[in-house]
Amino acid sequence: MVEAISWTKDTLNIIDQTKLPADYVRIDLQTVDDVYDAIKQLKVRGAPAIGITAAYGLYVAMRNEAVETRDMFFAAMQKHIDYLSEARPTAVNLVWALHLLRDQLNATDLTSAEELETKLLELAIELHEDDAERCRAIGRFGREVINKHASVLTHCNTGALATGGIGTALGVIYQAHEDDKEIQVFANETRPVLQGARLTAWELTQAKIPVNLVCDSMSASLMQHGKVDVIIVGADRIAADGSVANKIGTYSVAVLAKFHSVPFYVAAPFSTFDMSIHEGKNIPIEERGNDEIRKIAGRSIAPGDVDCWNPAFDITPPDLITGIITEKGIVYPPYRENIEQFAKK
Amino acid sequence: MVEAISWTKDTLNIIDQTKLPADYVRIDLQTVDDVYDAIKQLKVRGAPAIGITAAYGLYVAMRNEAVETRDMFFAAMQKHIDYLSEARPTAVNLVWALHLLRDQLNATDLTSAEELETKLLELAIELHEDDAERCRAIGRFGREVINKHASVLTHCNTGALATGGIGTALGVIYQAHEDDKEIQVFANETRPVLQGARLTAWELTQAKIPVNLVCDSMSASLMQHGKVDVIIVGADRIAADGSVANKIGTYSVAVLAKFHSVPFYVAAPFSTFDMSIHEGKNIPIEERGNDEIRKIAGRSIAPGDVDCWNPAFDITPPDLITGIITEKGIVYPPYRENIEQFAKK
Repeated sequence: MVEAISWTKDTLNIIDQTKLPADYVRIDLQTVDDVYDAIKQLKVRGAPAIGITAAYGLYVAMRNEAVETRDMFFAAMQKHIDYLSEARPTAVNLVWALHLLRDQLNATDLTSAEELETKLLELAIELHEDDAERCRAIGRFGREVINKHASVLTHCNTGALATGGIGTALGVIYQAHEDDKEIQVFANETRPVLQGARLTAWELTQAKIPVNLVCDSMSASLMQHGKVDVIIVGADRIAADGSVANKIGTYSVAVLAKFHSVPFYVAAPFSTFDMSIHEGKNIPIEERGNDEIRKIAGRSIAPGDVDCWNPAFDITPPDLITGIITEKGIVYPPYRENIEQFAKK
Repeated sequence: MVEAISWTKDTLNIIDQTKLPADYVRIDLQTVDDVYDAIKQLKVRGAPAIGITAAYGLYVAMRNEAVETRDMFFAAMQKHIDYLSEARPTAVNLVWALHLLRDQLNATDLTSAEELETKLLELAIELHEDDAERCRAIGRFGREVINKHASVLTHCNTGALATGGIGTALGVIYQAHEDDKEIQVFANETRPVLQGARLTAWELTQAKIPVNLVCDSMSASLMQHGKVDVIIVGADRIAADGSVANKIGTYSVAVLAKFHSVPFYVAAPFSTFDMSIHEGKNIPIEERGNDEIRKIAGRSIAPGDVDCWNPAFDITPPDLITGIITEKGIVYPPYRENIEQFAKK
């Protein structure tokens, strides 16, 4: 399995995802500006992966600072936190990770900049390892939903390229593959941005997991022909009632799964649950620009002036979801009660 | 509304559809070689449109022949029929149209090549006009399924670019627009070949019919939000039980329509019914190459070696179809009995 982010020989190293799938290029990020640019230009993407990169980035920034006291250290660090936070203003995980590290450092009684710097790296590595462990836990709990010889359909990219570990929905697939189950994956290409074609198909090919790429409109035929045993997707946000906001096209797959009696699972860490949102219909849906549909890889595929409707996400209601695989176990219906129970664990 | 094929001032003139939607280019086809190349290179596509172009092409070929007697005429014509038939070997309408014209000429008692040539043009024009009239009739019968202010979803291209008239499913939409119903069309882009994005969005924009282009994976969300009142699609072949083979993605839309209680209509001339096929599962489905999915407009969007599953068509079973709009009226369930009744009309 590929590693989107690695910290080796004291160097932050990432896959430049803008070059995929044509070229596999790894780059070192030597300065805070390198880190800022990598996040801004989507060389690294996926909420957890962005947070982890920023955490290492903060250490890289501080390593290059000539500060001595605790006060000087925190003043300089805040400047870098503000700077890195701007790289992708809407990425919640970016700010969350940077603030987490600052608060954790603040809670120590370390006095020298040197000690704080050492601790900062430890915390960044810990954040990375925690994310990897959460992915592993999701994978382990997800084992039971994938039979030997199962054919699994997934949508979008939720794997090693999006997280600090093996991923969420793809994490379950990696785990099944490690367990020597002879699985076959169908990857929806995931229009308009084609994360399935560009990233999921690439990751799984790298991991030598058998994968067939299909257009999103072909899922229904796959199920009609009995070619799908189970579906696993990720989530961007989950409401308190179990409604799942995820990449556009997820709801379509969920309806088709219901019609064909194929189990439909969501895999996501507990940080994805937003208990402040009572029902799915209250999750805001971002609508994006026309050109994301009208152009592919810079080329026009439609009249330049045609209107489009381009929601980035859709909402799958809880009654279409067989179970939600988390790092604490699989949550089954009734969701509202069970999510509340699991959240306390 | 655009005209894919026109016969004006004694000249066969078509839209070069390979240039759409970027450029609207009309070209004259002056020789039988021009006609052959236009069909082979997909400058004209869509089963009825190919048949009509070939019919005019046969006249263009014979006009350039120096023959005198009936026998000489038929001998020369057969040579051109064989040649044109090769332009797209799997296009049933191509051979059907050429043989129809030959048989119609054969049934006359005309003796001079000059008279036969004149008659040949009349027959080609008649074929064109018949197709246009069939489209019109489908449009008129389809009227009743589209309410004023209706929002209509369609898949693939079934319009003026694919036929000798206003089209089948799009024909119903053109008719509704002419009736001053304030309709709104959602066009599925129709991966992998993008006929919806490239052709349907373009045709409707030309006709000033409000259209929104969506990715195929967005239909479900449209229906979930109550944005679709009725769905109309075309058909490539219809079995005796009412099962419909049509562009891949059609079955997906049909299942989603059932789930959301949106009426789902198929529009097709009676020539699309294949009474020799008893049930949908007996319709052969062509599987096409991987690169149709892995590349768009010549550019790679996926790993070059990833396997794909790429069926060109899918089968929608009769229980998902509200009605089939034909040039003889709308056929409703029970389909097997009613199709047989209509076929006799």
